[in-house]
Amino acid sequence: MATNVLPRSVQRLINELARLPGIGSKTASRLTFFLLRSADSNQALELSSALQELKEKTRFCSICYHITEEDPCDVCKDAERNQRLVCVVEEPLDVLAIERSRAYNGLYHVLHGAISPVEGVGPDDLYIEPFITRVANGDFEEIIIATNATLEGDSTARYLERRLAALGGRFRLTSLARGLAVGSDLEYTDEVTLGRALQGRQSL
Amino acid sequence: MATNVLPRSVQRLINELARLPGIGSKTASRLTFFLLRSADSNQALELSSALQELKEKTRFCSICYHITEEDPCDVCKDAERNQRLVCVVEEPLDVLAIERSRAYNGLYHVLHGAISPVEGVGPDDLYIEPFITRVANGDFEEIIIATNATLEGDSTARYLERRLAALGGRFRLTSLARGLAVGSDLEYTDEVTLGRALQGRQSL
Repeated sequence: MATNVLPRSVQRLINELARLPGIGSKTASRLTFFLLRSADSNQALELSSALQELKEKTRFCSICYHITEEDPCDVCKDAERNQRLVCVVEEPLDVLAIERSRAYNGLYHVLHGAISPVEGVGPDDLYIEPFITRVANGDFEEIIIATNATLEGDSTARYLERRLAALGGRFRLTSLARGLAVGSDLEYTDEVTLGRALQGRQSL
Repeated sequence: MATNVLPRSVQRLINELARLPGIGSKTASRLTFFLLRSADSNQALELSSALQELKEKTRFCSICYHITEEDPCDVCKDAERNQRLVCVVEEPLDVLAIERSRAYNGLYHVLHGAISPVEGVGPDDLYIEPFITRVANGDFEEIIIATNATLEGDSTARYLERRLAALGGRFRLTSLARGLAVGSDLEYTDEVTLGRALQGRQSL
């Protein structure tokens, strides 16, 4: 009696999908059978070609390590941006979030992660060295450390601070303000954030 | 100021992944950046080729509508199986589950879904007609309706029952027993299941 009557190609896709983070074998099966049955019969092929294109066309910008199709990336190439201001972020998506704020006109550096001893991510696993070199060789006026407001983000910020301080104090080192989210209720704001909002209070 | 500095190919993969059920744009971004950064640089390409292979190599068995690389499928081709016994299931994965039980040696029919007015799935969206034709032209002794023990599964079972009854009573129509899961505590079994287990009690 056959005990595994699933075709090899189906099992292969399930296995590949299950390698993605947060996708277990149940979800992988569900997605595979969705694609097998999809009304848009090209969906699996579209996804396949998008994956291929991703690998073929994208690379990291050799200056800021943002993801780009052309090196250097659009931001690094943009002469209208403030070339003496740089913002360090964990992920490419953080660049997008900051751009959406329309409140920043400097350059970026993407670390591609944060230091996390728990997950075994050390400074050498991130693009920290290229940034230190870039700062040492560059002429920045201000460096904004914009890592996440998490334990890992804060550890990474502290590490960067130490490394950058060793370069001598030719630039200002800043970090994003902590405080109430715009539109949020004071009542529902956690005590740590509220504490930081009080410490950082500004005169009207 | 650039407001979307994400390369087109990256955005394209995010969009494609977000079309999958249960994957929102946040998860799609997370998966895309995982693949961009993956230590196994071939992972995206492996996934891409698995998707392509899925579409190229698999089809539905023309007899039972199970997923297969060869038509008819291994189960339908297997002369050692009881050709007069057929089990109707919702999904190809249900065939696997039943095979794993090692308690069945008949044929299958896969409906590829269940009737669900809420989700707009009617009998015509499933492979019900081919099954009615198969039964009408065949010589089955018993038909086991093994749809899920859900509202949709039960509706589908009722619909099949009506349609099959119209063919005349040449075969026995059965359904899977409802009752306590093996290894489960009576205390934690829901009252409906317990009710069905009592109704279906068997002499020792």
